Amino acid sequence: MTVQLRPEAKPVRVALLGCGTVGTEVVRLLHEQADDLAARVGAPVELAGVAVRRPHKHHDVPAELLTTDAAGLIASDVDVVVEVIGGIEPARTLLLDALRAGRSVVTANKALLAEHGAELFEAADAAGADLYFEAAVAGAIPLLRPLRESLAGDRITRVMGIVNGTTNFILSAMDGTGASYAETLEEATQLGYAEADPTADVDGFDAAAKAAILASLAFHTRVTAADVYREGIAAVSAADVAAARELGRTVKLLAICEREADDEGEAVSVRVHPAMIPRSHPLAGVNGAFNAVFVEADAAGQLMFYGQGAGGAPTASAVLGDLVAVARNRVMGGRGPRESAYADLPVRPMGRTPTRYHISLDVADRSGVLSQVAAVFAEHDVSIAVVRQEGRGADASLVVVTHSAPDAALRSTVDKIAGLPVVREVVSVMRVEGEEL
Amino acid sequence: MTVQLRPEAKPVRVALLGCGTVGTEVVRLLHEQADDLAARVGAPVELAGVAVRRPHKHHDVPAELLTTDAAGLIASDVDVVVEVIGGIEPARTLLLDALRAGRSVVTANKALLAEHGAELFEAADAAGADLYFEAAVAGAIPLLRPLRESLAGDRITRVMGIVNGTTNFILSAMDGTGASYAETLEEATQLGYAEADPTADVDGFDAAAKAAILASLAFHTRVTAADVYREGIAAVSAADVAAARELGRTVKLLAICEREADDEGEAVSVRVHPAMIPRSHPLAGVNGAFNAVFVEADAAGQLMFYGQGAGGAPTASAVLGDLVAVARNRVMGGRGPRESAYADLPVRPMGRTPTRYHISLDVADRSGVLSQVAAVFAEHDVSIAVVRQEGRGADASLVVVTHSAPDAALRSTVDKIAGLPVVREVVSVMRVEGEEL
Repeated sequence: MTVQLRPEAKPVRVALLGCGTVGTEVVRLLHEQADDLAARVGAPVELAGVAVRRPHKHHDVPAELLTTDAAGLIASDVDVVVEVIGGIEPARTLLLDALRAGRSVVTANKALLAEHGAELFEAADAAGADLYFEAAVAGAIPLLRPLRESLAGDRITRVMGIVNGTTNFILSAMDGTGASYAETLEEATQLGYAEADPTADVDGFDAAAKAAILASLAFHTRVTAADVYREGIAAVSAADVAAARELGRTVKLLAICEREADDEGEAVSVRVHPAMIPRSHPLAGVNGAFNAVFVEADAAGQLMFYGQGAGGAPTASAVLGDLVAVARNRVMGGRGPRESAYADLPVRPMGRTPTRYHISLDVADRSGVLSQVAAVFAEHDVSIAVVRQEGRGADASLVVVTHSAPDAALRSTVDKIAGLPVVREVVSVMRVEGEEL
Repeated sequence: MTVQLRPEAKPVRVALLGCGTVGTEVVRLLHEQADDLAARVGAPVELAGVAVRRPHKHHDVPAELLTTDAAGLIASDVDVVVEVIGGIEPARTLLLDALRAGRSVVTANKALLAEHGAELFEAADAAGADLYFEAAVAGAIPLLRPLRESLAGDRITRVMGIVNGTTNFILSAMDGTGASYAETLEEATQLGYAEADPTADVDGFDAAAKAAILASLAFHTRVTAADVYREGIAAVSAADVAAARELGRTVKLLAICEREADDEGEAVSVRVHPAMIPRSHPLAGVNGAFNAVFVEADAAGQLMFYGQGAGGAPTASAVLGDLVAVARNRVMGGRGPRESAYADLPVRPMGRTPTRYHISLDVADRSGVLSQVAAVFAEHDVSIAVVRQEGRGADASLVVVTHSAPDAALRSTVDKIAGLPVVREVVSVMRVEGEEL
């Protein structure tokens, strides 16, 4: 290996905030890859300190690097601050301080970016500092850099993906076993695939934060977590999974960001909810803890990115990639891309977002039922794509898949149908995505 | 849309060299996306001129922009030179001139980069100019930027992919119809999927140039097209495709870049050849003109990138992404990543590269045949993974899949076996890739 460092190259000094699963891997890689990182950056990359709450718990980190004083570490002679604490505070205050002091920031904190991204970008901009966050979405999968840079000359119209491993593990398992959500969650918790408090994952908060970040980058528009329509997987029943299976489909929790024009002009919609997709769809084969994201752009067409969405080493890989980029900018001069929010498109509410529904009903098995049900659809201006009716003794199964219609119209249709005397039970209602039926 | 350009922002002036399928799309996108590009770059992006051989043939380009004097255009007041001519000369001389004059260069020219990359990088470096080439490999798929930047903090061990659409179309069709290579090539030519002279595609030159570029970036080592072991698809027979099918496999032309240590230390191997992969492998489902590339890295694990590998609009999307990056660097200051060849690993010859073979033979149906064949494998130190023998009257079919061994040992084994009196015919010999059997 012939490493040529610039003779004047001062080390790039890194402050690491947090040292959990990801932080530990960052420390390991900084040590093991030191020569390669130096060659790629053009200067040595030096760990200046690691801020943690309980220093005595971190035996893998040289004791002299550990500190409980994160603010002091940031204020010391460091060039880059890497944040892997997670959560809003104290991460927010610490990173704002870091940026204001001109430090470059690399963070894996999706919640913080999705809620306070604008504030962070403004601080970065005012100080001329870099703010990179590839690890915040889809772990090791290079996704944000392609959106921000590779596709910067194209017009992205859609981003749709599986961005949460825990829910994907649970839904894959429900599909495999036919078990209920509650049973499967319990199993996932025992196996360590779900946290003791799984709320952030199963209620879709984690995916919604990622969706906000993806939409912001794809559409050059500020989108926060609060703008994202969100449904988790707690209401997905074994009946939903079975209904999907009967249609040659499977249930996935999807993050969907779209840009579309309607009567009121161009707008974006950003949503996270379970949906049925065809088993032939590439996302249907993404199982367990893997993530995959489809991107559609006018000129590029359809792209897919696939890989490990979480875990210490994969997330650390993304952090280190960003660290090399910001360190290289320090050494060579220059800055990475800044926030790009110029398009400033309105976010369309879910009610006006076009979706398609699958509705499975138990109905009385007599003539005229279909016409009553169909009348409700017509009344709401919802067009039906497929109907399947099967008699089973005294009652019948009626499955309807709609064409695309505003989500609010579809919801009202379902509510009204549920109240029809001929409808015995609404077995399953779920949005469908993927190619047209 | 609230576009805020820096008040002092001078337009970034672009010279386009060549105006075929890709160039025409670049001109169209520069025009249609002008406002977006200006907002993303921070300054207007202006087409200064288009150098072509026959100006009267280009009705889509304003006449005053067309010129036959490429060198004059480069020497005029331009900031960025975009090259989509292809081939070695005059592209090489023009781009060297452009870089020496301090112009940033965006090129889609894989052949040029794979043969003269080092010379171009040196010229870029001496002048402090940018050299970007995302469009040179896998069309619209953001692949080079992730390798160069996102994974810059990781250790890439393997890149394996389908990077040529024409051969993939032909192999997909052979697999579907059972037809011969010659018939399928003729059909592909009639449908416009193969060029009138298909040599660059079917003999693997195109894929080899891309493999050289991928290996250079992945392993921080200069790899040229001449370093790449290359076999095309002209020798793939209907019998090979049928043999693959019987094993639950399919034949693909793969570009494979690996980094591995053996007795003589760490080295890279770079090769392009047809191989059988399991039908369950994600690359098996990549059909027609699509491209897909797997990347394996120590920390990130397995990643996959998928999309359209060629075509005017997809390639133009990649060109425009690079154009935004180099234009942004002009406006904001700074430079993109330079050549990174510090690791300087040796390229291992194909004979010493470990591969696995599938060998299908017609043999005499009598006892002792398998032991004779097995003895040849043992003699060459090649270990057998699977043997399947089936009697069919007077002769028998014998299928062997080996474990991994140096390619030269496998070849010698096949040569010797072909000469055994008990072997009536060597039906199919092909390397196997993908997960272990």
